[in-house]
Amino acid sequence: MKVSQTFLPTLREVPADAVIVSHRLMMRAAMLRKLANGLFAYLPIGLRSLRKVERIVREEMDAIGSLEIKPTVVVPGEIWKESGRWDTMGDGMLRVKNRLGGDFVVSPTAEEAFTALVRDELSSYRQLPLTLYQINTKYRDEIRPRYGVMRGREFTMKDAYSYHTDEASLDETYQAMGRAYRRIFKRCGLTVIPVRADTGAMGGTGSEEFMVESEIGDNTLILCRSCDYAANVEKAGCKPDFAAPADLAAADIAAAAVPARAKVSTPSVRTIDELCAFLKTDSKKFIKTLVYKAVNVELDLSAAPGCAKLNRRAAAPDAPKSYPEAFFAVAIRGDLDVNETKLAAVLKASEVALASDVDVERLTGAPVGFAGPVGLTLLPVVADETVTAMSDAVTGGLEKDIHFEHVAYGRDFAPWLVADVRVVKAGDRCSVCGGELYEKKGNELGHIFKLGYKYTKSMNVSFLDEQGKAQVPTMGCYGIGVDRTLASIIEERHDDDGIVWPMSVAPFQVSIVPIKYEGAMKEAADKLAAELEAQGIEVLLDDRTERPGVKFKDADLIGIPLRVVVGDKNLPKVEVKARGEKEPRLVEAAAAAAELAAAVRKELAVLNA
Amino acid sequence: MKVSQTFLPTLREVPADAVIVSHRLMMRAAMLRKLANGLFAYLPIGLRSLRKVERIVREEMDAIGSLEIKPTVVVPGEIWKESGRWDTMGDGMLRVKNRLGGDFVVSPTAEEAFTALVRDELSSYRQLPLTLYQINTKYRDEIRPRYGVMRGREFTMKDAYSYHTDEASLDETYQAMGRAYRRIFKRCGLTVIPVRADTGAMGGTGSEEFMVESEIGDNTLILCRSCDYAANVEKAGCKPDFAAPADLAAADIAAAAVPARAKVSTPSVRTIDELCAFLKTDSKKFIKTLVYKAVNVELDLSAAPGCAKLNRRAAAPDAPKSYPEAFFAVAIRGDLDVNETKLAAVLKASEVALASDVDVERLTGAPVGFAGPVGLTLLPVVADETVTAMSDAVTGGLEKDIHFEHVAYGRDFAPWLVADVRVVKAGDRCSVCGGELYEKKGNELGHIFKLGYKYTKSMNVSFLDEQGKAQVPTMGCYGIGVDRTLASIIEERHDDDGIVWPMSVAPFQVSIVPIKYEGAMKEAADKLAAELEAQGIEVLLDDRTERPGVKFKDADLIGIPLRVVVGDKNLPKVEVKARGEKEPRLVEAAAAAAELAAAVRKELAVLNA
Repeated sequence: MKVSQTFLPTLREVPADAVIVSHRLMMRAAMLRKLANGLFAYLPIGLRSLRKVERIVREEMDAIGSLEIKPTVVVPGEIWKESGRWDTMGDGMLRVKNRLGGDFVVSPTAEEAFTALVRDELSSYRQLPLTLYQINTKYRDEIRPRYGVMRGREFTMKDAYSYHTDEASLDETYQAMGRAYRRIFKRCGLTVIPVRADTGAMGGTGSEEFMVESEIGDNTLILCRSCDYAANVEKAGCKPDFAAPADLAAADIAAAAVPARAKVSTPSVRTIDELCAFLKTDSKKFIKTLVYKAVNVELDLSAAPGCAKLNRRAAAPDAPKSYPEAFFAVAIRGDLDVNETKLAAVLKASEVALASDVDVERLTGAPVGFAGPVGLTLLPVVADETVTAMSDAVTGGLEKDIHFEHVAYGRDFAPWLVADVRVVKAGDRCSVCGGELYEKKGNELGHIFKLGYKYTKSMNVSFLDEQGKAQVPTMGCYGIGVDRTLASIIEERHDDDGIVWPMSVAPFQVSIVPIKYEGAMKEAADKLAAELEAQGIEVLLDDRTERPGVKFKDADLIGIPLRVVVGDKNLPKVEVKARGEKEPRLVEAAAAAAELAAAVRKELAVLNA
Repeated sequence: MKVSQTFLPTLREVPADAVIVSHRLMMRAAMLRKLANGLFAYLPIGLRSLRKVERIVREEMDAIGSLEIKPTVVVPGEIWKESGRWDTMGDGMLRVKNRLGGDFVVSPTAEEAFTALVRDELSSYRQLPLTLYQINTKYRDEIRPRYGVMRGREFTMKDAYSYHTDEASLDETYQAMGRAYRRIFKRCGLTVIPVRADTGAMGGTGSEEFMVESEIGDNTLILCRSCDYAANVEKAGCKPDFAAPADLAAADIAAAAVPARAKVSTPSVRTIDELCAFLKTDSKKFIKTLVYKAVNVELDLSAAPGCAKLNRRAAAPDAPKSYPEAFFAVAIRGDLDVNETKLAAVLKASEVALASDVDVERLTGAPVGFAGPVGLTLLPVVADETVTAMSDAVTGGLEKDIHFEHVAYGRDFAPWLVADVRVVKAGDRCSVCGGELYEKKGNELGHIFKLGYKYTKSMNVSFLDEQGKAQVPTMGCYGIGVDRTLASIIEERHDDDGIVWPMSVAPFQVSIVPIKYEGAMKEAADKLAAELEAQGIEVLLDDRTERPGVKFKDADLIGIPLRVVVGDKNLPKVEVKARGEKEPRLVEAAAAAAELAAAVRKELAVLNA
């Protein structure tokens, strides 16, 4: 294709609102234009690359037997009401009333639509497993869309959903998806960090996020310097940095030499830092106690302190029973923070948040700052694992301006539950190999997730098993943000001059730049383009009357992997240069097509290997 | 692909709400499922065919230099306000307020989005002509969606928009689009009726609709039995069936022998039929006079009767001036009806509708039923051409229960304007060749249209011409309904057993049905499938354990063009049958792949010729 025949309004200036590299380069290289905040139009050259990412995703989905379908983008609100997410999705979901007053949703995701379709067709175990996917338009009503298509409102997502007779079948598809995702990102020339969460903490039984490192990432990753451990900070664990007694009896023995618990007056002292200064000790000697309110708690609290009167109920006949609201005291070593995601998982709660000051006073009998695990009767105590190793600690005294010294775990209090709820930080030790952990910001490009029965139960999906008995299928979901993947390739692969595309996603594979598009240069350029196109190579021929410098700058900006310069001086040779290389090589024009085509095929073969 | 590996829940029963053949067959053949009224999900086999139609459209657009882009589906309401269509699009346009209170539209069409994009990039005449297109999701909030994807709410449309320095350039692209559309429908195996409207009546200067015949069509077409004249009834003309005098003077001469106009009392007579009976004459002798209210009339009315006080104004500085509202008396031969589309075009009005009874009484001085052109002072008279030939007519008398006899055009009244505003009917004569016209119902699959300056002016698009002077580009738009095209192929190509796909759109090209998928039959079927797939032929192999009859029925229902039956009895031969044929032929299994592949290529070559 000739530049004069496409639409390539490249920019020298960087739009003011483009603060990250991919956004800047996508605007400058004429891949994108903004229609409104968070709404971007792909121009021809951008769409070529987007479609290539889509094609890679499609090929890998098809290769594992996932079947493409196309539900609508606008879907009935009814199915969101069935799943319960009509109420829980919040304002990020774009809701529409149509002219007849019906509720509709501009799809942000499609668990409901796929499950509704499968429900109507599923009758026998013979139809399972079934994995369906779409590559389609999604909409999330971001309050502050930014970073171009990295966090836009409308975007293209590949979302797949699988249905299974049992856990083993789900796991098989889940593993195949994981492999397909690794291939997809490899073929896109991307370095991803697969982040596993094997704890089962999220209610499902497995989940893996595919992250790319990014300064503006939404996520904090915890990585090990010595092995390939990688986790989202929300779920990361670490090697214990304490020596805990085996049980409460062992704790008692450890506490034998510790003086008896004693009250200490701590007037006007509220924070851990103030306490450290006041008592001339270290934050690791404190047991910090925080009161949390948890919502929709599925854990059985019938034997928990202060919970006898709580009422456990189910929202629907088939839904799990839960307590609409419950309070907990969380005790943790003073130098650490509570990871609320882990805490919610431990409690099987849909949400946890610090309790209000009023609730804290009511439940601990003291103002905020003096909670402690000793003598608490109105609250179940959840102790972080670190607390079990503390035999001579300072805690709040459940009284204004009072703390306890010489508190020993086991001797002075017993928690209702012990769990790992700490926030893991850089410098903590890897739970796998003991290496040093460090942090990175990351953006999620893909996510595979064992959903279990959440949607199939709430939406009443069933099939008949081999014995003719009705069963509920288990389910997985698997998403990839297509635009975000494209932008992330640019984030990873660029230099000061522009984009450095991998061959697989480049809008064109070879750029031909005649110094002037006339005479022998025109002839040679046209001939080379025709020869390459005859071999299926995608060529962009710059036939404009611009100065050579302008054409070179545009070719670098657009980032086409191979560039051929056709100049009078060198003919019958031409200059060939890969985008990443500094210096061109002279090649006989007559041999250039064969050499370039081979180079294209070779890089594709490496990426697709 | 094996049937067991796809998702093909074919139906024996026809869903109750599926009343047309394509809807019934798309549901039965597992191409589609309903998510809600007017919202359909394509299942794998349906999506395969939909994508093939898309690909044909894309190839033909690319071939004429149209460039694909991808704006968003959800677009800002602002640009619709700029064009003025925010107010005129009505309730069929789905409007959304987002969480921040912004107005958005789920695109029903994209003149605004494309024009906004082009406006920001266009500077020089050198960038023109420019034709951009998308194949993307559209939404129209149909009150009564029906007929499956033929009239759904969400659908896929190819819409292209072109921008030009001048009319000649627009015409060149318009003609190229017309040729591309003919090729697209031919490649889809469809018989379309191209319907031209060369009258320039719609404000643009050219338009062509691509119709398919359909019992449930939205449009009435007027066709000629003797030539290829075809027009939408809204715009159709016919050969005059009257002999009109050359001018008013000639009309006077024609009226010389006619008795003087006379009042006749017609108590309780209101309809033309009643009048015919009462006066013992024929409806062709009457001049029917109807009062119309017209909205946004651009025609200059400064010299028109009764219009002196009307105020002509422009909605925006650059918008054309118009009268917000004006009334007209339309006179037409009594056996004919007024074509309101033609009338609106003649008046350059955005809309016309019969006036209310109150307005009729106020403007004619008589109740409804007694309007006539003689003595009317408060209204401009628009006379249909037929009226100019009437020298001895009956008209309303502008008084209750009074008509006039012996009214002569020219002698007794002179119209303000003469125009063709009649509804053309079956039996009228062709304006091109004089042949007999007949009617058909049709559905519009595509439309190409010279828009002119409507959007480029209202949205302030400009470029600098060769002299450096700012100019407004002229514009064309070109749409194809992709789903509707797919459904129309089924409407045209089916039999009692199911769909009869053209090779170009068939979800698979060859179906292989082993009588039993075991032993030698399995081996032969697998081998044939592998041989065909190696040649790029798309194969569906029915590996199910169903009875042969069930498999045959499904193959016919799905409509795969070529079927191979592999049975023990015939091996080493197999039965080959085209979907349209009655009897299979026996072919050596070893030679079948070559023969089938050749047949596939041959049919594709014919379709693509």
